[in-house]
Amino acid sequence: MTEPQHRTPEPMWHAWGTAEDAEPLPEHLRALLTDALGVPRRDTPPVPRERVRVRESALAEEAASALAEIVGTRHLHTDEHARLLHTGGKSTPDLLRRRAGEADEAPDAVVRPGTHEEVERVLRTCARERITVVAFGGGTSVVGGVNPDRSTSPVVVALDLARLDRLLDLDTESGTATLQAGLRGPEAERLLRERGFTLGHFPQSFEYATIGGFAATRSSGQASAGYGRFDDMVLDLRVATPRGTLQPGRAPASAAGPDLRQLFLGSEGAFGVVTEVTVRIHPVPEETRHEAWSFPDFATGAAALRTLARTGALPTVARLSDETETGLNLATAEVGEHAPSGGCLAVTTYEGTAEHVEARHAEASALLRAAGGTPLGPEAALSWDRGRFHAPYLRDALLDVNAFAETLETATTWSNLDRTYRAVLNALTDSLSRQGTSPLVMCHVSHVYPTGASLYFTVACARTEDPLAQWRQAKRAACEAIVSVGATITHHHAVGSDHRDWMHEEVGELGLDVLRAVKSVVDPEGVLNPGKLIPPRR
Amino acid sequence: MTEPQHRTPEPMWHAWGTAEDAEPLPEHLRALLTDALGVPRRDTPPVPRERVRVRESALAEEAASALAEIVGTRHLHTDEHARLLHTGGKSTPDLLRRRAGEADEAPDAVVRPGTHEEVERVLRTCARERITVVAFGGGTSVVGGVNPDRSTSPVVVALDLARLDRLLDLDTESGTATLQAGLRGPEAERLLRERGFTLGHFPQSFEYATIGGFAATRSSGQASAGYGRFDDMVLDLRVATPRGTLQPGRAPASAAGPDLRQLFLGSEGAFGVVTEVTVRIHPVPEETRHEAWSFPDFATGAAALRTLARTGALPTVARLSDETETGLNLATAEVGEHAPSGGCLAVTTYEGTAEHVEARHAEASALLRAAGGTPLGPEAALSWDRGRFHAPYLRDALLDVNAFAETLETATTWSNLDRTYRAVLNALTDSLSRQGTSPLVMCHVSHVYPTGASLYFTVACARTEDPLAQWRQAKRAACEAIVSVGATITHHHAVGSDHRDWMHEEVGELGLDVLRAVKSVVDPEGVLNPGKLIPPRR
Repeated sequence: MTEPQHRTPEPMWHAWGTAEDAEPLPEHLRALLTDALGVPRRDTPPVPRERVRVRESALAEEAASALAEIVGTRHLHTDEHARLLHTGGKSTPDLLRRRAGEADEAPDAVVRPGTHEEVERVLRTCARERITVVAFGGGTSVVGGVNPDRSTSPVVVALDLARLDRLLDLDTESGTATLQAGLRGPEAERLLRERGFTLGHFPQSFEYATIGGFAATRSSGQASAGYGRFDDMVLDLRVATPRGTLQPGRAPASAAGPDLRQLFLGSEGAFGVVTEVTVRIHPVPEETRHEAWSFPDFATGAAALRTLARTGALPTVARLSDETETGLNLATAEVGEHAPSGGCLAVTTYEGTAEHVEARHAEASALLRAAGGTPLGPEAALSWDRGRFHAPYLRDALLDVNAFAETLETATTWSNLDRTYRAVLNALTDSLSRQGTSPLVMCHVSHVYPTGASLYFTVACARTEDPLAQWRQAKRAACEAIVSVGATITHHHAVGSDHRDWMHEEVGELGLDVLRAVKSVVDPEGVLNPGKLIPPRR
Repeated sequence: MTEPQHRTPEPMWHAWGTAEDAEPLPEHLRALLTDALGVPRRDTPPVPRERVRVRESALAEEAASALAEIVGTRHLHTDEHARLLHTGGKSTPDLLRRRAGEADEAPDAVVRPGTHEEVERVLRTCARERITVVAFGGGTSVVGGVNPDRSTSPVVVALDLARLDRLLDLDTESGTATLQAGLRGPEAERLLRERGFTLGHFPQSFEYATIGGFAATRSSGQASAGYGRFDDMVLDLRVATPRGTLQPGRAPASAAGPDLRQLFLGSEGAFGVVTEVTVRIHPVPEETRHEAWSFPDFATGAAALRTLARTGALPTVARLSDETETGLNLATAEVGEHAPSGGCLAVTTYEGTAEHVEARHAEASALLRAAGGTPLGPEAALSWDRGRFHAPYLRDALLDVNAFAETLETATTWSNLDRTYRAVLNALTDSLSRQGTSPLVMCHVSHVYPTGASLYFTVACARTEDPLAQWRQAKRAACEAIVSVGATITHHHAVGSDHRDWMHEEVGELGLDVLRAVKSVVDPEGVLNPGKLIPPRR
């Protein structure tokens, strides 16, 4: 099914990583789970693949022929293996269901178009045949963003963009590149680096996630302080819909009416399928400088990052762990042995020309010091850098040994940050403690803006008998806390099905009507990723 | 009619400035018009106000009562004076028509609501009565953005936002302020500066234009290199529509679906009326440093600005005149006697803390020097700074002495900048020369991005017998040139009625259908600023 020359190795259907990535949890962490969180010591391996039953494909022969005629027979897949691998995203509930052998969600077919025009033809055909289409890039959604939904049609195809894997254009003078949507992070970087450039977009999902997915979900990478969010980087995008193609970008900036780019960025496959994105790129940095800092507490560290952002002196990476995460760093692979055990750890990275790194480091260091920071040298920052894509693999290992682990995130203004932090922390702690599974909740600031910042929470705890219900309750408590303090329901994980109920609070009923009206224009038959993004009318 | 304690002095209905601002064109410039452009020496004063006839208001008594009941009798105006002052914007064609005594466009009434709720009630009433509503801020549109259009209804009211003139909230920790839409630039700045902050938004229309207008048109100020475009500054906005209120901003950044802020920014009164905007603000700079530079030619200067933008080392203001504009600076008030006569002049300004100004100046100066620039000291930059709102007043004086003068602008990527520059320059020159009025066309880069820049053209020439037809032809040639090279039809002047025909090229027919669908949700009766932004179906 796969075309290996194009692809990052294939992950397991029930895990973040590949079979080769699977590593048992280190013994000292396993002991910590038992001692600190009361996780009963038990192995909880996934149901073996051979015992997983996939129901028969509901794709009718006629529709299959029509699709095969567009993409070619060898790019239409109805075998179990292909369908299982497109069953949905990689939230902890997703993985728990799959580890239990549940495969009912699996799509009825996987179709792999090779060109924008083929994508458009597939969408027209599916609209005609009333077949649900789930655009599928890296499959790394943690909010149910690519899970098949059969509420509007009994037939679902996953539209896998893996064959759209080319760098179409590179404009060195303007510093822009046009990339096809199916390129995964490492492949896009490799193509750009061969020409001396980088995209500078490194979300934790980098190894699997795709250019199209970055656009469809308003992704934000770990170096967003320097390179911006993905939605900031986009000059143009090409979107295939059942009604035709949209390509709304004409210039770096324009006053030619509403910015339709920002209407399709974040549209999560519900308004069309992004097939190409023209993005800002950067020369591969001449120099990279890492420096860790220690702050006496989270609030002091946050105020220091605020000063950097407001002064216009942000490093390329600026990240601050709370006291709990800083303490835990000692025990995890994320920062490792170089982390300080007290206070709060901040990680900074500076990239650019030698002169720029020197100038920015001098300005930022003076501000951080004045704001109460103590420089720790490069080691802890380098450790973080080495381990920065590791956390989801660690989750696989945790799920193997009876623990529960999940993340969630939000963003708000600086003046509301502490209130939001406490509200979410308390909501998660209270909800899980009331269920008899007192959690460990840690948090970091990973994306910093002049007017506010993101907060990223990681939760670990023992499981109840029904871990899906357990988390549903805790997640709902966290979402209610986020909304009640006026923060956003998601900073970079997107809406999917999991945050859909909170979209009323984000944009109001009239805002939802606007989204519904846009959808009805580009997708009148309602075949594009139903059940995501836009909640039903109240 | 006006509430003078709130307002910048009232401009004349047929001019940019007030009666007090009117100054005759300096004799040396008048001589230049005759010598260089063949402008016949003749005074062309406007038709005196007392000879201008305004037709009777078509607002029915019942509708007038309903509106008066909402806003209070004293805030509903049907007198000639109020109506004339809301006849439309300030493009040169607008002014030429008014100078000739044409007042047919004048709205039937001016209504001045005092609260968001009153705005919403006015919109509901107008929707019910099928009365066209033109939201009116500073009235500075130069693209026909606020000109009454009677194609869908014989009755038009101007909804003047002048009474929405308060600073509603200032969050010093987050660096944000919530401003009402009717605040003009200087009033907003005064309110913020009293608290130690600045918005940093200084378009040439600053003295008259309003917060709501900045939002509705995606305005960009002269200090955009440092403070960003207005659409970059917006965290939230409150929009009244006939269907209710929208308020889509929840955080500095979010992945909660499409960014609806960017759908209402640039909606030009066609999707609703912006009544409040929450924007990023900045501490009043500790220090401001001005420095002029000279470059051997426009392309070298542009490449230097490109380097600054790509390195992340932009000053607060970065502006570059082409050879013609640099030469003319000698003769105009814009830069004055300190301008160099050869090459191309660049103006830079650095603002911020003393340390930030020092650091940024050091980094940028080294880059500018390496890119072929010669520093000229502060004088020419200070001259530009002093005269930076002056050009539209100079146009009033030019129109008084038989000359034609107008501006237009675009933006594109760096690699397309020279091609765009030449295409527009040639189109304007050819079109006007073919009409027997060889023009002077000058240009500057006023807004700089990592991936591209804006180009702002100023045209002066003699008039034909029908200067409106003369400019229509030249403007069309320029727009065709812009579109043919793939640049955007407008970087910061917006669409209005003048650029509406080119929106097909910007977003395509499907993009226009998306805009139409949004409009049909928020304005089902089609009463909001018809004839602007969205062209009729082809």
